[in-house]
Amino acid sequence: MGNVFEGFLSTPEVMEAFGDRAFVAAMLRFEAALANAQADAGVIPESAARSIADTCKVELFDAAKIVRESARAGSLSVPLVNSLKETVGLFNREASAWVHFGSVSQDVIDTAMALITRDVLVLIEADLHTCVNAILALAEQHLDTPMLARTLMQPASVTSFGLKCVNWAAPLVRGLRRLQAAKAGALKVQLGGGIGTLARMGNKGPQITAHMAEALGLGLPRAPWHTQRDEWIALACELGLMAGSLGKIAKDVSLLGQFEVGEVWERHEPGRGASSDMPHKNNPVASMAALAAAQRVPQRLAALLASMPHEHERALGGWQAELAEWSQLLMSVHASSKAMAQALPFLVVDTARMRSHIDAAARSVDKDSAKTWFDPALALGAGQLARDYLGALQRAE
Amino acid sequence: MGNVFEGFLSTPEVMEAFGDRAFVAAMLRFEAALANAQADAGVIPESAARSIADTCKVELFDAAKIVRESARAGSLSVPLVNSLKETVGLFNREASAWVHFGSVSQDVIDTAMALITRDVLVLIEADLHTCVNAILALAEQHLDTPMLARTLMQPASVTSFGLKCVNWAAPLVRGLRRLQAAKAGALKVQLGGGIGTLARMGNKGPQITAHMAEALGLGLPRAPWHTQRDEWIALACELGLMAGSLGKIAKDVSLLGQFEVGEVWERHEPGRGASSDMPHKNNPVASMAALAAAQRVPQRLAALLASMPHEHERALGGWQAELAEWSQLLMSVHASSKAMAQALPFLVVDTARMRSHIDAAARSVDKDSAKTWFDPALALGAGQLARDYLGALQRAE
Amino acid sequence: MGNVFEGFLSTPEVMEAFGDRAFVAAMLRFEAALANAQADAGVIPESAARSIADTCKVELFDAAKIVRESARAGSLSVPLVNSLKETVGLFNREASAWVHFGSVSQDVIDTAMALITRDVLVLIEADLHTCVNAILALAEQHLDTPMLARTLMQPASVTSFGLKCVNWAAPLVRGLRRLQAAKAGALKVQLGGGIGTLARMGNKGPQITAHMAEALGLGLPRAPWHTQRDEWIALACELGLMAGSLGKIAKDVSLLGQFEVGEVWERHEPGRGASSDMPHKNNPVASMAALAAAQRVPQRLAALLASMPHEHERALGGWQAELAEWSQLLMSVHASSKAMAQALPFLVVDTARMRSHIDAAARSVDKDSAKTWFDPALALGAGQLARDYLGALQRAE
Amino acid sequence: MGNVFEGFLSTPEVMEAFGDRAFVAAMLRFEAALANAQADAGVIPESAARSIADTCKVELFDAAKIVRESARAGSLSVPLVNSLKETVGLFNREASAWVHFGSVSQDVIDTAMALITRDVLVLIEADLHTCVNAILALAEQHLDTPMLARTLMQPASVTSFGLKCVNWAAPLVRGLRRLQAAKAGALKVQLGGGIGTLARMGNKGPQITAHMAEALGLGLPRAPWHTQRDEWIALACELGLMAGSLGKIAKDVSLLGQFEVGEVWERHEPGRGASSDMPHKNNPVASMAALAAAQRVPQRLAALLASMPHEHERALGGWQAELAEWSQLLMSVHASSKAMAQALPFLVVDTARMRSHIDAAARSVDKDSAKTWFDPALALGAGQLARDYLGALQRAE
Repeated sequence: MGNVFEGFLSTPEVMEAFGDRAFVAAMLRFEAALANAQADAGVIPESAARSIADTCKVELFDAAKIVRESARAGSLSVPLVNSLKETVGLFNREASAWVHFGSVSQDVIDTAMALITRDVLVLIEADLHTCVNAILALAEQHLDTPMLARTLMQPASVTSFGLKCVNWAAPLVRGLRRLQAAKAGALKVQLGGGIGTLARMGNKGPQITAHMAEALGLGLPRAPWHTQRDEWIALACELGLMAGSLGKIAKDVSLLGQFEVGEVWERHEPGRGASSDMPHKNNPVASMAALAAAQRVPQRLAALLASMPHEHERALGGWQAELAEWSQLLMSVHASSKAMAQALPFLVVDTARMRSHIDAAARSVDKDSAKTWFDPALALGAGQLARDYLGALQRAE
Repeated sequence: MGNVFEGFLSTPEVMEAFGDRAFVAAMLRFEAALANAQADAGVIPESAARSIADTCKVELFDAAKIVRESARAGSLSVPLVNSLKETVGLFNREASAWVHFGSVSQDVIDTAMALITRDVLVLIEADLHTCVNAILALAEQHLDTPMLARTLMQPASVTSFGLKCVNWAAPLVRGLRRLQAAKAGALKVQLGGGIGTLARMGNKGPQITAHMAEALGLGLPRAPWHTQRDEWIALACELGLMAGSLGKIAKDVSLLGQFEVGEVWERHEPGRGASSDMPHKNNPVASMAALAAAQRVPQRLAALLASMPHEHERALGGWQAELAEWSQLLMSVHASSKAMAQALPFLVVDTARMRSHIDAAARSVDKDSAKTWFDPALALGAGQLARDYLGALQRAE
Repeated sequence: MGNVFEGFLSTPEVMEAFGDRAFVAAMLRFEAALANAQADAGVIPESAARSIADTCKVELFDAAKIVRESARAGSLSVPLVNSLKETVGLFNREASAWVHFGSVSQDVIDTAMALITRDVLVLIEADLHTCVNAILALAEQHLDTPMLARTLMQPASVTSFGLKCVNWAAPLVRGLRRLQAAKAGALKVQLGGGIGTLARMGNKGPQITAHMAEALGLGLPRAPWHTQRDEWIALACELGLMAGSLGKIAKDVSLLGQFEVGEVWERHEPGRGASSDMPHKNNPVASMAALAAAQRVPQRLAALLASMPHEHERALGGWQAELAEWSQLLMSVHASSKAMAQALPFLVVDTARMRSHIDAAARSVDKDSAKTWFDPALALGAGQLARDYLGALQRAE
Repeated sequence: MGNVFEGFLSTPEVMEAFGDRAFVAAMLRFEAALANAQADAGVIPESAARSIADTCKVELFDAAKIVRESARAGSLSVPLVNSLKETVGLFNREASAWVHFGSVSQDVIDTAMALITRDVLVLIEADLHTCVNAILALAEQHLDTPMLARTLMQPASVTSFGLKCVNWAAPLVRGLRRLQAAKAGALKVQLGGGIGTLARMGNKGPQITAHMAEALGLGLPRAPWHTQRDEWIALACELGLMAGSLGKIAKDVSLLGQFEVGEVWERHEPGRGASSDMPHKNNPVASMAALAAAQRVPQRLAALLASMPHEHERALGGWQAELAEWSQLLMSVHASSKAMAQALPFLVVDTARMRSHIDAAARSVDKDSAKTWFDPALALGAGQLARDYLGALQRAE
């Protein structure tokens, strides 16, 4: 059950990452880490922690049932904690009372989100590096290849395809760099207890949080961030910018790949981009996926930003909306990065068509204008700019 | 696999309606109706149509596999049509060539969307009637019950709870009425063939379309609406308005249900709205769901409207994005209507608290102001307005 | 002072309509109508009403100062009412106390919005009729003109330019029709007094409202709609749909007008669409304006829908945000309709280019496919569809 | 002429910054710097540069006329450059030809945007520091003041007002820090010429750009960023996050300031927050402004992100939409920061009300729960957390 359209607008990887089993597994990782850290701090008994940690195995739970029951509970963690207590209690009755001790729904869910997001970002970053490398290789090959520059959808003058490629790549390279800072700010453990005061852990809260951060490989926040969402949403912003930068490439590729232009296009592969009716069609489905993402992602961002004014110590609606929008944001961004990573290394380039359009543009204006604006030799200047920039990007990558 | 958060921000009913099996079933209904209508018009052989229609049974297909394959194909209908042709071919080799004849992906998908949307709207409308009836019953009971009116979050004067209820209900009643017009415009069969010209059906296109519309119980469009999305998105707008109107009620209920206000609140039910940490908590989860929807739905609308400038005869990205956003819109709106339909019939009202806040407000200003603005008798005038309006709404409902 | 970019993304007409002077004038029309209606109902003295109505002339007021003072007051009506009371008091001291009697900021501002919106819609509708007529004339001329149909940005088959035009026009025709219903619902007088109970007008509230509606030429609401925004935002939705439908045309025109396509383009006019650097450039600035609007308007709609959950009897932030977004919505939509109304009657069409692209597409596939999909004669079928549809649209228009 | 509602939802400062005169002045600064840098590089004659630079004084131009003419031209720079050429030509005929040499609309407009944005950010940052200092002072004063913590709009347990304040302040402090990085990336000179290749400046382009960056006090980009908008929109994201963080504070203040809660509220000032009808009303207009901004800003961000897929070397619609949305973003964010900077230093705090709500909550549950969750002494633990965090924030500020 789910959304049938995400089949081609999302990716199986991210759908699985936010699927029942993976999310329950991530929540269990939190509960195990919490118990261990609390035992270490002397807040709960060692034996209870051992029982809890040993029970935090996703295969012991009916993940689908937990998710199903979240509908009634209004929260994913309530049925998870109930199931966990019950299962722990089968083996160690006393331990049951220490499950999820002093913690709250938002602790386990936010932390699970951070864990899953971290994993999804590995995929997205790998795709982006593939994209950058593919584009920079194209740039290198076509540094001085003359091509029409088009402004406001009309021929303007002559640039080089290499410079166009460099201009595609630079935002991805910068985005990858900014992403590191955003990840450092956002991928942190969440532990605050009911109201963000860690009240039930005596004065051991900070120590427990630090222990958990280390165990889970997440950052250590200065304080619980139940209602301080700025660093978390800042990461979403970076992903939104990436979808925009990928969308720009897809937009250009789709325009260049029009039949009447035919300068650059996605390589056709059997079984991909076919039409259900027209056998001669070969649709640019990677660009389609990236353009669909570039249209959808800004709305995810708007929803995330609009949800920021949480009420008091936990929002009514705003936090919950954030969770759903966040996961869909990652689905769309990975759909885009994956599609482009599959397409960009195999772009087909027709430099003769590029040249013929320059010549046609030159013929459409008077001789002086043709010389000034549509001289293929203008590509050399563009190429020089591209060359310098390319070097910098290659060093950064 | 899917999105774990839709467990409590969507509904199982709509998730199932847009799940693999239900969507494949709806696409198969299209294919069967197409074959029958084409046979009837003499465009394909009767025997082929019979074979096709007999094979269009969802239990004969691996729906999950079809959806999985859509990722590579970039379209849901390509693997569906391939599967259908193959299965039909097992029984009737000649018939296989007539599967999906002269039709295109967008035909089958748009029509399936219309079929499923129609079914989901039945659920939403039923909920809305439940909401309206519950609110009007409250209104009737509290026509003259004095209550603080609050503007810009501050006490302003005295109204009646009955009038407040009527003001909650009226937009739902109007929305239900506007919805009928929007449905009539939007819930239509789609049949255009590859480029919206019905080219391969000779001059029988309109006749076939009409036959299908009748068979599927959908409206008959004047022409294919592949790129004319106004009536379709107009229906989405009505749903967006409904989420806003429900959100207004939820906002008020959540404010009135604050501990310090305590005038109206959602009845607490065991297992619903509990906290994973704090046993004394009883969270207003119906309002939560409606408020989350009211935050998310506007973004779905924005995405749908932004997708309207389709390129040429079928969009690259825009149509596909529309599909995904549409289904999520329905999920959020049903989450809201269902939650409110469950909560509104059981609202708890404390008229004594209402009265005590009026008295306190009166004490906070000078005597003259108290008389002018905080006299409980002002509820009678509000009640009179409410009484007249209520009658009109009851007649409309 | 204002926003320098609205110079080319909005229109002077709508900027003026929402400018200081025009808005103050509209608010004064409300105050005059209110006083007259209240005198007629015996709620305020005739002589006071006369003084007030006589003073409600915009030239007697410093509109810019009133708007400036709204910043501190947090409301436009507070400084307006203060100025009006003061000015009335100069001539008729007693009358001053009857200014704005029993009314509230939202009454005067919502009504002023309705008045101004009505005027702006006259402009927009006139543009839309110009657009429809221009497109239908083109359709008539090119019913059977063969042209490539393109799906997912790739050649698909042959349609007729006439059918393309009809598909552009139909959403505008329908949108104009739906707009009438939306206007009837939305363009209503607002009168509720402080909290929407009309409390200070005794039982004369409904009579006064009716009188004002007639005097101002606005619809009569069943009840104050301070917090019932569904009909108002429903009108915004129709405008949003219109921006989308116009955007679709602009998208197609901008694609068809590319140098390498050159099938249809905006006529070049001196001083319009020039480049500050490149004398040979002629930019499609009408499409630019419509496309910019189609990108911006969905966000306006999202903001309007998100603002619907007003708190209690008047929202804190939501209503105020609605006002600003509403006016910007009208600016963008008129920018789009005006630009397209200026461009569409003068579209340049090159049927030879259309034909040559069909031929090229035919050459790019095997002979059988060429016959099936790229035979110019396919335009005749498209033309037949277009012919029937055109007749219906012409009758509707 | 402009938008009357921005009177209370924007600020005069930012409206002026994006007004006709200021924007024309900023464009002239670009043209002067360009001429000087080109003369320095030997690309244009020294005497021409001197004439141009001397003429680039806003008082010599009819700014309103330039903006008015942008409507027809579809660009602000075309009429500006025409005016400038004409005026320069009056004094030095030869110099006229060197005006705007080798540059393009986007160069002058993007650079003017960067200059104005820099100035507006000075205002916003000053406000934010005022906010932070005010909140931290409150935090210090109320480190251990017991107050109800509320989750999902219901009493949850006891926190301290100091911790609440620290949680308000931390996102602002972090946001200010992130803003520095975003500014360094975004506030750069733009110089690319017609298509971003600096073609007409020989190989002197980079040298000229560097000279201009220094003269204008802007950053030096690695290359023209005509279609690489990631760093620019990343700055917008930071502003969007800030509006969200301020909105969270405003949301809490508006909830705490409800009559029935009355724990914290905006100080009432004469002439501010009055009602046009109800003399006893004192509306929290600072929160209103911040909440309206928090609702509107996410949509501005969505529009900016959606505009990122620029077509080729200059977008048709996307760039132009970006300009308008950008300026409105700054207006809303400054409205929010200014309102909160005016309100936060004067918040009124009622610790007795805080205490009485805790006591009431304690009475509403059984004794054990009361002890566990509603013991005022729980504020001490919260206070300890707050104390540590406060120190860190004060050091950062």
